[in-house]
Amino acid sequence: MLSLNAEELQDLKQTLKTRVPGHGLPRPFYHRELLYQAELEFIWRGGWLFAGHSCQIPNPGDYFLYEVDDDSMIIVRQDDGTVRAFYNVCRHRGSLICEAGEGSVKRFICPYHQWTYDRAGRLILFRGMQAGIDKSQLGLQAVHTRELEGLIFISLAQEPRDFDAAAEAIASMVRPQGLKHASHPQYIRANFDQYNADDTIDRIAEELAEVTARSATKWAAQGLAITVNHTGLAEFPDPDRNIWYAADRTPLLDGYVSETMDGQQIAPLMGAYTDPDVGTLRVRTLPNLWNHSSCDHSVTTRITPNGLHHTNIRMIWLVDAKAREGTDYQLDKMLPFWLLTSEQDWEICVRQQRGVNSHAYLPGPLSTYKEYNLDRFLRWYLKEMSEALG
Amino acid sequence: MLSLNAEELQDLKQTLKTRVPGHGLPRPFYHRELLYQAELEFIWRGGWLFAGHSCQIPNPGDYFLYEVDDDSMIIVRQDDGTVRAFYNVCRHRGSLICEAGEGSVKRFICPYHQWTYDRAGRLILFRGMQAGIDKSQLGLQAVHTRELEGLIFISLAQEPRDFDAAAEAIASMVRPQGLKHASHPQYIRANFDQYNADDTIDRIAEELAEVTARSATKWAAQGLAITVNHTGLAEFPDPDRNIWYAADRTPLLDGYVSETMDGQQIAPLMGAYTDPDVGTLRVRTLPNLWNHSSCDHSVTTRITPNGLHHTNIRMIWLVDAKAREGTDYQLDKMLPFWLLTSEQDWEICVRQQRGVNSHAYLPGPLSTYKEYNLDRFLRWYLKEMSEALG
Amino acid sequence: MLSLNAEELQDLKQTLKTRVPGHGLPRPFYHRELLYQAELEFIWRGGWLFAGHSCQIPNPGDYFLYEVDDDSMIIVRQDDGTVRAFYNVCRHRGSLICEAGEGSVKRFICPYHQWTYDRAGRLILFRGMQAGIDKSQLGLQAVHTRELEGLIFISLAQEPRDFDAAAEAIASMVRPQGLKHASHPQYIRANFDQYNADDTIDRIAEELAEVTARSATKWAAQGLAITVNHTGLAEFPDPDRNIWYAADRTPLLDGYVSETMDGQQIAPLMGAYTDPDVGTLRVRTLPNLWNHSSCDHSVTTRITPNGLHHTNIRMIWLVDAKAREGTDYQLDKMLPFWLLTSEQDWEICVRQQRGVNSHAYLPGPLSTYKEYNLDRFLRWYLKEMSEALG
Repeated sequence: MLSLNAEELQDLKQTLKTRVPGHGLPRPFYHRELLYQAELEFIWRGGWLFAGHSCQIPNPGDYFLYEVDDDSMIIVRQDDGTVRAFYNVCRHRGSLICEAGEGSVKRFICPYHQWTYDRAGRLILFRGMQAGIDKSQLGLQAVHTRELEGLIFISLAQEPRDFDAAAEAIASMVRPQGLKHASHPQYIRANFDQYNADDTIDRIAEELAEVTARSATKWAAQGLAITVNHTGLAEFPDPDRNIWYAADRTPLLDGYVSETMDGQQIAPLMGAYTDPDVGTLRVRTLPNLWNHSSCDHSVTTRITPNGLHHTNIRMIWLVDAKAREGTDYQLDKMLPFWLLTSEQDWEICVRQQRGVNSHAYLPGPLSTYKEYNLDRFLRWYLKEMSEALG
Repeated sequence: MLSLNAEELQDLKQTLKTRVPGHGLPRPFYHRELLYQAELEFIWRGGWLFAGHSCQIPNPGDYFLYEVDDDSMIIVRQDDGTVRAFYNVCRHRGSLICEAGEGSVKRFICPYHQWTYDRAGRLILFRGMQAGIDKSQLGLQAVHTRELEGLIFISLAQEPRDFDAAAEAIASMVRPQGLKHASHPQYIRANFDQYNADDTIDRIAEELAEVTARSATKWAAQGLAITVNHTGLAEFPDPDRNIWYAADRTPLLDGYVSETMDGQQIAPLMGAYTDPDVGTLRVRTLPNLWNHSSCDHSVTTRITPNGLHHTNIRMIWLVDAKAREGTDYQLDKMLPFWLLTSEQDWEICVRQQRGVNSHAYLPGPLSTYKEYNLDRFLRWYLKEMSEALG
Repeated sequence: MLSLNAEELQDLKQTLKTRVPGHGLPRPFYHRELLYQAELEFIWRGGWLFAGHSCQIPNPGDYFLYEVDDDSMIIVRQDDGTVRAFYNVCRHRGSLICEAGEGSVKRFICPYHQWTYDRAGRLILFRGMQAGIDKSQLGLQAVHTRELEGLIFISLAQEPRDFDAAAEAIASMVRPQGLKHASHPQYIRANFDQYNADDTIDRIAEELAEVTARSATKWAAQGLAITVNHTGLAEFPDPDRNIWYAADRTPLLDGYVSETMDGQQIAPLMGAYTDPDVGTLRVRTLPNLWNHSSCDHSVTTRITPNGLHHTNIRMIWLVDAKAREGTDYQLDKMLPFWLLTSEQDWEICVRQQRGVNSHAYLPGPLSTYKEYNLDRFLRWYLKEMSEALG
């Protein structure tokens, strides 16, 4: 949908080459509307996006909306239990069909002239239209969808890229967590400018590796894969092998069994877990998902562009489907750990965006100890963009 | 004032050709700043705009402002009783002269350096200016004006298009309503994104036609023209004959004598009417006026662009000049009918704008039963634009 | 930093030629983003900007921020008592370093990864970075700075233009006022669209000249230069001689010894003054400073662009450093005179901006009696821009 003239194409290609290896991105990457439009086209409408959790729409007709920049999509549970997604745009006059962010419907009825679509997106009623118009050509425009162990992904591309390798890598890691059967007690949402998170302390990464070694045998007995067997963070993504997804299990510090303020378990064990000592499971997919799961709860962050200088964030906390708020867990024990961390990250991002706004901003060197994943991300991003521009 | 380079001109011409006959407008029509600027130039500064009602400025020196995008115009009653209009911009430093949206003045005095203009826009005082500057060349810039049976129209074009045919078509229809001698008890104003209203129910249109037949003789006796003698809505506009104006009288449903919630008359008869059974009078002029008049009150809607994604709406309710609020009529009986209808329409428009924002929006087929006037409007709009672009 | 293609360059040059001599600026000067960007580059990042007063940062480590459009600068007192300025942008990831608008620091520590700079802008600490990165190349980017009798100027240009002639013209005039040793009790800030102030009444200018003649001998005895010895306002700037600075002393009206509401002295004498009868000292530098000083207090106005249609204004009131609020002076006696005047000017400016927004705006003739300094400013501005564009 993005149409570039020769000058714009040349300009974009040139800009992509201005990054000095091992350094941050030059200023135009943070400012240029044209580049933002190209990112929407190639990264956001080209890749697989995490949209939400299966447990948000357990029953046929349950739906939620996901909005990416100017596009609104309906993600809806089908009568056969699968999930499908459609553009939230009437095929008659283009009106938005659903306004509520989530709900449950029998049919989708456009409020303008009552064109009516079934849950599978088929146009089933359009009163007052003349003969000779083929209803079957006027269904809601479908969006590619994959449901993976409780995670719902969509692709806005005409021909979506391969998902199977990602599915294979993620599914077995996530299965024991039982996200498929989780429930979501609460979520928060926030807007801010540009997000980056790449900072950890080496000492802790080393400690984690030691504990990992200790846990390996025990976890193997429970069927839990251990994926990090060296010091430092798992490297991610892998631009050379086109890997935009990762699922890793890492031990927690001694004394911690959950990512809570005091490290104690605060909700019933999730999924297939039989022992709280399962470390932490991290799932990441580019461009917009990370999830941190402990034995007893799981926290998802979804980021979405909303204009050149705005990003929407949605965080979702999940617990086992059988857990009851107030009895089995308290929100005030569960939320603070990742909420406080996230809020601090958001402040950092806003401050960084304000800094790179300066015409004097110069990208600095990245730490090869601490920022190698940022470097990987930038290389992945530049490669994706360059290939898309041809 | 709009200067287009060759590329932009070509681009606009190309865009105008992208509409599929019988369908809505493609996405760029709702989004492109360049197209919006061209609409401002050719439609809004090229045609005749309804500015307001004569009864808003009954006496010499009475004025109101009308703002179209970035232009502010003063519409002012002259000493000889005619109406004139001027740009609200001082010829010295360009300051806005009038800030209050309506009022009464002896002279127009710019608040910056007190350059003073009479009601006819002539510069009569500019203290502190050197000799040799010709005051007569520095009057307020005039805008073409026509006052028609209580309706004031302006044209921002250098050479305004023909108004006489419209005047002829509208004058005799509107005269009996007495808008010239009306008073306006109240108005409301609202901002929203894009307005369309084209939906009626066939069954009602048919009923109207039946009642029409019945009323014809009676009305003719009172000198009231009847213009709709077939089922369905009056067709409007007529792009082939360049007709951008319409005035029609239609019967109301049995039991209704006024467009009020219960159909009862709620104010004294207006103008020359002697019987409440006068049906409803509808006046429309493109691009910005529609008026619905009953025997006892009249409701005007004026729409005006205010940036690419904003439209200003002003509604004005009129009653006979002799009617007194509280005694002869109650606002709470008069306002709801068209206010509620309008508010519902505005919600529809906002929702449609949000939908067509999606890059996935595809224009759908229009109903030949219900949306033929929208089709006519789109054809009129495309023809106007194409001709203006040459 | 501004990169213009051939078409844009031609367009800008053409626009600069559209002003009719002796008239205001045509509409594009108030509207075009490209022209605004060129002004930022050539006027704001090309010249010397008044940033603030020495008394705002009396001690080593004291700093304040100055923000010009998207650039944030730290102005900081050095250990040796001089003033330096740096871009407020970390050399690592580009984060803003200081958020508080003013404060006192030992070191500048970026809140993102704790890169640490000393007060002289040198990078002294960057934990977690690999060997082989040269800290000495990663200091804060310096901005040229000059401190002149209590006034701090900065230049964002690589090669700043000459400052010495301005320093010479201003220093001796300002020295007796003692701004160097002033204190600032209060400031206000406001945002608005475009500022101009050029209006005075001839009669008053003539009276001033008479009093000037009377005061000359007395002032000479106190070592106070008198610079205005003719009727009318001092002419400023001088585009032909590239003079963008001025410092003038003018008598006040009979009965006035200070620019207060009743003309009475309301604070202790400032600086080297021994007699309240010192008239008024006015210092102006383009593009962003004017200062009005009386015997007992001094008022500075600093204007700064903040986007195409926004201007930031900061006003600062200064008194002698030894003066104590509540005992030696009352704010309610000191603030109103220039605060009310300024607020009225701001209203004028907003109104003028709204007027010139109209596509019908035509620049009018300027008064050769009252607006010659505006004409000089416009000629200076056009010459600066033309020369910069080559």
